[in-house]
Amino acid sequence: MHTAVDIITAKRNGHQLTTQHISWMVNAYTAGDVSDEQFAALAMAIYFQGLNDDELLALTTAMLNSGTTLSFSDLGKPTADKHSTGGVGDKITLPLTPLVASYGVAVPQLSGRGLGHTGGTLDKLEAIPGFRVDLTEAQIRAQLLDPGGVICAPTAQLAPADKKIYALRDVTGTVDSMPLIASSIMSKKLAEGTDTLVLDVKTGTGAFMQDEAQARQLAQKMVWLGQAHGVNTTAVLTRMDTPLGYTVGNAIEVEETLEVLAGGGPADVVELTVTLAQHMLTGAGIDADPADHLANGKAMDAWRAMVTAQYGDPDVPLPTPSHSHTVVAEHTGVVTSMDARAVGEAAWRIGAGRQYQGQAVQATAGIRLYAKPGDTVHAGDPLGTLYTETPERFETSAQILQNAIQTGQAFTAPRLIVDVIS
Amino acid sequence: MHTAVDIITAKRNGHQLTTQHISWMVNAYTAGDVSDEQFAALAMAIYFQGLNDDELLALTTAMLNSGTTLSFSDLGKPTADKHSTGGVGDKITLPLTPLVASYGVAVPQLSGRGLGHTGGTLDKLEAIPGFRVDLTEAQIRAQLLDPGGVICAPTAQLAPADKKIYALRDVTGTVDSMPLIASSIMSKKLAEGTDTLVLDVKTGTGAFMQDEAQARQLAQKMVWLGQAHGVNTTAVLTRMDTPLGYTVGNAIEVEETLEVLAGGGPADVVELTVTLAQHMLTGAGIDADPADHLANGKAMDAWRAMVTAQYGDPDVPLPTPSHSHTVVAEHTGVVTSMDARAVGEAAWRIGAGRQYQGQAVQATAGIRLYAKPGDTVHAGDPLGTLYTETPERFETSAQILQNAIQTGQAFTAPRLIVDVIS
Repeated sequence: MHTAVDIITAKRNGHQLTTQHISWMVNAYTAGDVSDEQFAALAMAIYFQGLNDDELLALTTAMLNSGTTLSFSDLGKPTADKHSTGGVGDKITLPLTPLVASYGVAVPQLSGRGLGHTGGTLDKLEAIPGFRVDLTEAQIRAQLLDPGGVICAPTAQLAPADKKIYALRDVTGTVDSMPLIASSIMSKKLAEGTDTLVLDVKTGTGAFMQDEAQARQLAQKMVWLGQAHGVNTTAVLTRMDTPLGYTVGNAIEVEETLEVLAGGGPADVVELTVTLAQHMLTGAGIDADPADHLANGKAMDAWRAMVTAQYGDPDVPLPTPSHSHTVVAEHTGVVTSMDARAVGEAAWRIGAGRQYQGQAVQATAGIRLYAKPGDTVHAGDPLGTLYTETPERFETSAQILQNAIQTGQAFTAPRLIVDVIS
Repeated sequence: MHTAVDIITAKRNGHQLTTQHISWMVNAYTAGDVSDEQFAALAMAIYFQGLNDDELLALTTAMLNSGTTLSFSDLGKPTADKHSTGGVGDKITLPLTPLVASYGVAVPQLSGRGLGHTGGTLDKLEAIPGFRVDLTEAQIRAQLLDPGGVICAPTAQLAPADKKIYALRDVTGTVDSMPLIASSIMSKKLAEGTDTLVLDVKTGTGAFMQDEAQARQLAQKMVWLGQAHGVNTTAVLTRMDTPLGYTVGNAIEVEETLEVLAGGGPADVVELTVTLAQHMLTGAGIDADPADHLANGKAMDAWRAMVTAQYGDPDVPLPTPSHSHTVVAEHTGVVTSMDARAVGEAAWRIGAGRQYQGQAVQATAGIRLYAKPGDTVHAGDPLGTLYTETPERFETSAQILQNAIQTGQAFTAPRLIVDVIS
């Protein structure tokens, strides 16, 4: 108790914490010997005083070591993993995992569920009839050998300190602290035991880190943390002002994934999938153009094998929504913005996402968009269609979607890929 | 839950909280609807961002209104109350209460216990055989009518929010925040329903606020809060580098109190007692020199009546210690410093104080000093005698006491009373 107060006070006063202090604090908090109020006070002090590199590494390592860690070094094949800081319409994990796996790389994608305006990879996959996301470590291991890709929930034993600290930050206004974000992401990802890690760090209105300079700094810190732990880490800084692709939701994003795996799909989704795959393959020591396996069907084969291995049937049609409502353009003009956060909120409110953890989502809820910023629309043209099982929610979401899409004279879209940091 | 996070985040980001937000937060925390971790995060955010006057008043008022408030307006006599921010050897409440009461003023001194290096008024009084500090509101009221002074524990219903928030701050490194200190003291004091309030705000090495500028600011804020609530409030800024008087402990401080009430006693204790009494009498509309009732025995009569009313016997001798150990001067010279905090710690360690709430204290434990800064001492002269029932603790305390007293060439003591703020 006395030690906890001393550590909180030292950080509050701007002093550097030792590795021993940080490790003690994380372990004592995970074990329940340091109270929630004490760790909350420390988190707020870190929000104001920051952490230097030594402290950040100590925190990440302590969180990583709070539970079991996985190791896939005995698989006889390289492993590569991807993490996105979260966006709207961000279904990239779905085509990326089988695509990279199709080149003989083990891709252990331990993913999460949606909250608020961002959707969750597991929620999207569960729209596939029969698909299971809760696998044992033995199942994960078997699937990494064949077909090579797995997208599932983390096992509870991975980085329990992160789980507890994240839940605490969520209710104490200490989520948006750079060192706390970096240590949270990296402790989980490093616990997964990959050789190569590619980070998709989003910036823009729909991103967690809206400011580009801050997103870049987060990317640099995470790459440094990964390298410090001997993991080949690259970060790709990407724009998240506009939803990725033309779909936002659950089954509807799986549908768009199938288009990409069939060699088509929206240009932005294909560009980001291929870029991230390229960095994962390069990290795994494989010299290939990942666009090839989208074109020749090998990525689709790997997808079908993965879905089958996780108890889904790739030939059973996806569920279809009972109700739809289309929003049309009020004026003729060029689309100048399509606010990702607002579109995400519109999708969440018709049932595609959740407001609080544990809330159920609708597999069929979502939004289909018909334009991208830079496209010309005419008054009366459809801008987006909302789908749901609960049509009483259309009114609010339709209004949000209408407001999210602005038209004007001209617009030049910024590049999706801002920078690569390695 | 959502509202709490919004309020924490707003303060964290430097925004002003509304009176409604602050009031809601305090009430919800007191009721258990806002969690400890949430209030701890808010307290740390307040540590960094501060509170402006509107926010400080809202916080103090919300804490004050969290429980019952007392009112003595029906007593038919003026009421005056004193609060000290805490020092070493600070027995002033003991002679002050009967002295002011002897002029026909009701003096409701709801006091506390010691923690760490500062002693507690209630601990000192309990050294008197039979003395009781836990009184009902009816007993307090009766005693304020006759003999006029009462020194007892607060009833549990006064400012329960302060009690809960203080306990939280104690374990989360958020004690030394100016607005949190000011609101804590003033919510309690304003709940006691006095007409006149005199604050003894300490500054110096043994004080809570060591820095004079910070102590002055705290004094100004508290005077402003008192006036804002219609209470005639004055703050006296006083030095706390050296213990007050020549005694630090429990029974031993009561003994020194009796010297003061008998018309003698150490000059500093008399000066501070008379100065504070003067401000209390003036606030109560009484034009008199309080030194008179020390000289003519009327303050002693009021003391004896108070002790009797609280079940003590003023004629039973105070308990005496079983063991003593005297520290002597190593060099001849002028005493240049006698660190109050260290002397307080030496007294605490031999059993006069406590390390944690609820720990028992020894009535007979304490320290008698033989010199003041500015006095000349010769090598071998006694500097202080330690008293205890647990002599195995002498070694550490004797060393601390020895180190606390420094000698040199010359020393001019600063004025005890630094300033008066009203």
